[in-house]
Parts: sequence; structure tokens; C-alpha cells
Amino acid sequence: MAARLPPSRRADYPLCETIASRWADNDVYGHVNNAAYYTLIDSAVNRYMIVRAGVDIHSGPLIALVVETGCRFHHPLTFPQHIDIAMKVARLGVSSVTWHIALFESPAGAQSPAAADAHFTHVLVDRATRRPEPWPDPMRDALTAAMG
Amino acid sequence: MAARLPPSRRADYPLCETIASRWADNDVYGHVNNAAYYTLIDSAVNRYMIVRAGVDIHSGPLIALVVETGCRFHHPLTFPQHIDIAMKVARLGVSSVTWHIALFESPAGAQSPAAADAHFTHVLVDRATRRPEPWPDPMRDALTAAMG
Amino acid sequence: MAARLPPSRRADYPLCETIASRWADNDVYGHVNNAAYYTLIDSAVNRYMIVRAGVDIHSGPLIALVVETGCRFHHPLTFPQHIDIAMKVARLGVSSVTWHIALFESPAGAQSPAAADAHFTHVLVDRATRRPEPWPDPMRDALTAAMG
Amino acid sequence: MAARLPPSRRADYPLCETIASRWADNDVYGHVNNAAYYTLIDSAVNRYMIVRAGVDIHSGPLIALVVETGCRFHHPLTFPQHIDIAMKVARLGVSSVTWHIALFESPAGAQSPAAADAHFTHVLVDRATRRPEPWPDPMRDALTAAMG
Repeated sequence: MAARLPPSRRADYPLCETIASRWADNDVYGHVNNAAYYTLIDSAVNRYMIVRAGVDIHSGPLIALVVETGCRFHHPLTFPQHIDIAMKVARLGVSSVTWHIALFESPAGAQSPAAADAHFTHVLVDRATRRPEPWPDPMRDALTAAMG
Repeated sequence: MAARLPPSRRADYPLCETIASRWADNDVYGHVNNAAYYTLIDSAVNRYMIVRAGVDIHSGPLIALVVETGCRFHHPLTFPQHIDIAMKVARLGVSSVTWHIALFESPAGAQSPAAADAHFTHVLVDRATRRPEPWPDPMRDALTAAMG
Repeated sequence: MAARLPPSRRADYPLCETIASRWADNDVYGHVNNAAYYTLIDSAVNRYMIVRAGVDIHSGPLIALVVETGCRFHHPLTFPQHIDIAMKVARLGVSSVTWHIALFESPAGAQSPAAADAHFTHVLVDRATRRPEPWPDPMRDALTAAMG
Repeated sequence: MAARLPPSRRADYPLCETIASRWADNDVYGHVNNAAYYTLIDSAVNRYMIVRAGVDIHSGPLIALVVETGCRFHHPLTFPQHIDIAMKVARLGVSSVTWHIALFESPAGAQSPAAADAHFTHVLVDRATRRPEPWPDPMRDALTAAMG
């Protein structure tokens, strides 16, 4: 455990959205369950993909599928609480994108340490064939704008 | 189905909180899953119980357990969306409370019809024995304030 | 609360499936959260609709949407545990079906009292127009076979 | 993506439990949502911790908290389906344990490739202070028995 990276800071991220925790997020220890963090993370990323990058999840020809996620948990979050989900694009490939996402009790100050640090990788695919497709320019532009 | 009650209106409720839907709420048909409505409802009710009525879910001697819930679904909600959870206390018993809760796309106008109408009944119990206990005055006052 | 109906019994239901509870189902009080019951209920009903009634949730022209659910909670369930979801069709309309569903700690004996009693109403609709459609004969037959 | 590790095989794991997917696990693309995988994973791990390693989640003095999780998604799972959750202890520290977990459509053959490969790290802590504690011998023995 010695080599464990320290928590990131709110100031490390250009984007943030705030979301309320839910009663059902709490586990028997009174903390937001680890799996619930991922429901917050994919909500923030997908909201960006839909609203800013123009992905049409209902009928568009290109959809983004998750190929890898991970999270390090530093200190607990709970219900009731508002949570700041801070994020940036860390790596943009031909048809993939990796986000770095940090979660904080809201409102987080610039130097607040993250409660959790996560990464999340999407690959853009054709809806029918599920084969990778390169980012169209408007999507690539929106993702480039999310780089730190 | 002939006798089905019409949707309630936003103006029927004195209280409201707004919460963001999540990616995981959507089912295969692109709607918020019926079970997810209940996670919104018990979040709004429990937030009131904790913040306004003073219930200490982690170590208080009195806790509120759910004994009955129900929901009629009028039209779909989706992700991404913000949802207004409007609510009022409809019946206050010696140790029970029944809430009426309506969900709306946010921001709802006064005459907006509800996407769903729900009821939710809590019974106050002793944490150790799980036997019903009468509402202490501060909790009763907070619940009375939530009557329409 | 005086008029509260007693729990139903396992023997009241012709159908049953068993499902494992999950860590995330437990709330801060160590019980399966009320909303999680509905995820068990709609899993059992939809499994029947898909496997026995032939509903194709991915691309079929007819889909079943939830219009009403409700549940009375008698005693708690928990994780880890296996749960028997007993069910029957209580009412079959032209394009609707209402299930009665009871949940039990598994394995339930014939006279075991339910931990919770629920109802769940689906309406069959056209996938594109979302207008009600009458049950095709094979679906009606499968639902008739589920009557008590 | 060139260096991406291949999926593991069912035969790589000494332990396995089978769990049913749920309707609510499916996302709008008809796949089990990425966050839902973690609810399967922590259910399998915690069931082992409770049933085999003797952790008392309700009132024991020692509890296991999650400090890191991650998952690589190779091909989709769906509802309805039964899922084999294969697992082994990959690293056992003084007060921590890292599991490797692979998910498969059930029943998986010995050479079936995993749908997803995950890791999951618990740290044993004192319930009150939340400080790390060394594994008591019975817990350490149960975890040692889960090594591949």
C-alpha cells in the first residue's frame, strides 16, 4: 500500500457536475456503496457525451461502450449529501477516450482532496456492428475541449 | 382501467426537491426503470426525515421503516433529465406517516401533470426492538409542517 | 393500520423463481431496501414475459410497459440470502395483466408467510406508437397458464 | 489498446458462484450496465467474507472496506441470464486482500473466455476507529483457502 497515489484535487479538473446521493446508495456501513460511485461516474460522462458531444443514445448510428473502469476510494461519501463529480479527458484515441474523474463532497474547494479517483474508458462503435469507429469531428472537438 | 385517477399537478404539493436521473436508471426501452422511481422517492422522503425531522439514521434510537409503497406511472421519465419530486404528508398517525409524492420533468409548472403518482408509508420504530413508537414532538411538528 | 391484510402464503402461488440478494440491496439498517424489492419483482415478471410469453425486449414489435406497482412490507429480507419470488396472474385484461407477487426467504414452506406482498401491472403496447395492443394468442395463453 | 490483456478463463479460478441478472441491470443498449458488474462482484466477495471468513456485517468489531476496484469489459452480459462469478485471492496482505474476479455467461466451460475481468481490494478495519487491523487467524485461513 506504500506506493498508493495521493488523492487528486478539485483544481486538477476543468469540468464538474453536482449530483445528489440517494438513500439506496448507502450500504450497511452508512457509506455510499462502491458500485454506486460508478453510477455517478457514468452519469456524468454520459451526460457530457449526450449534451456536449451529440451522442444520440436512443437512435444514433454511433454509440459509446465502456471497455474499462477503475476507482480508488480514499474516504467515504454518504446519503444525504451532494457530490461534485469533477472530470477531464486524459487520453483521446482514434475511437476511444479515457476520462479521469474525481468525486468530492459538494461544494469542493480548489484544494479539497478527492473522496475517490476513477478512470473510465469508452470506445465509439457502430450501433449495429459494434465495431470501433473513429470519432466524427464534432465529437472529437467536444472531447478535446474537456482536456485539462 | 376506466376508473384510473388522473395525474396530480405540481400545485397540489407544498414541498419539492430536484434530483438528477442517472444513466443506470434507464432501462432497455430508454425510460427510467419503474424500480428507480422508488429510489428517488425514498431519497426525497428520507432527506426530509433526516434534515427537517431530525432522524439520525446512523445511531439514533428511533428509525423509520417502510411498510407500504405504491406508484402509478403516467408517462416516462428518462436520462439525462432533472426530476422534480413534489411531496406532502397526506396522513399522520400516532407512529406512522403516509406521503403522497409526484414526479415531474424539471422544471414543472404549477399545472404540469405528474409523470407518476406515488404513496409511501413509514412507521417509526425503536431501533433495537423494531416496535412502533409514537412520534416525538419535534418529528411530529416537522411532519405536520409538510401537510398540504 | 387495523385493516391491514395478513401476509399471503407460499401455497397461494403456482409459480416461483429463486434469486440471490446482493450486497447493494442492503440499506443502512441491514435490510433489503424497499426499492430493491421492485428490482426483484420486475426481474421475475419480465423473465416470465421473455422466456414463457415470447416478448422480445430488444427488437419485438410489442413491449410491456409498467403502469402500476405496489408493495406491502411485512418483515425484512437481507443480504446474503436467497429469495423466493412467488407469483401468479391475478387479472388478465385485453391488453393488460396484473400479477400478484410475494417474496419469501428461500426455501419457503407451503405455509410460510410472505415477507412482502406486491402487485404489478403491465400494459402491452406497440413499440413505436406506445399505444395499447391486445395480447396475441401465444402471450395470452402463457399468461392464462400463470393464473392461480 | 494494443497491449490489452486477453480475457481470463474459467479454469483460472478455484471458486465460483452463480447469480441471476436483473431487469434493472440492463441499460438502454440491452447490456448489463458497467456499474451493475460491481454489484455482482461485491456480492460474491462479501458472501465469501460473511459465510466463509466469518465477518459479521451487522455488529462484528472488524469490517472490510473497499479501497480499490477495477474492471475490463470484453463482451456484454444481459438480462435474462445467469452469470458465473469466478474468483480467487490474488494477494493477501497483513490487513488487506485483493481478489481477481471474472464474469461469464453461465454455465461456463473450463476454457470459456471471461466477459469481464475485475480486481477488488478490501482492507480490514476496526468498525469504530476505521483503522486497519491484521486479519485474525480464522479469516486469514479462509482467505488463504481461496488462493488459486
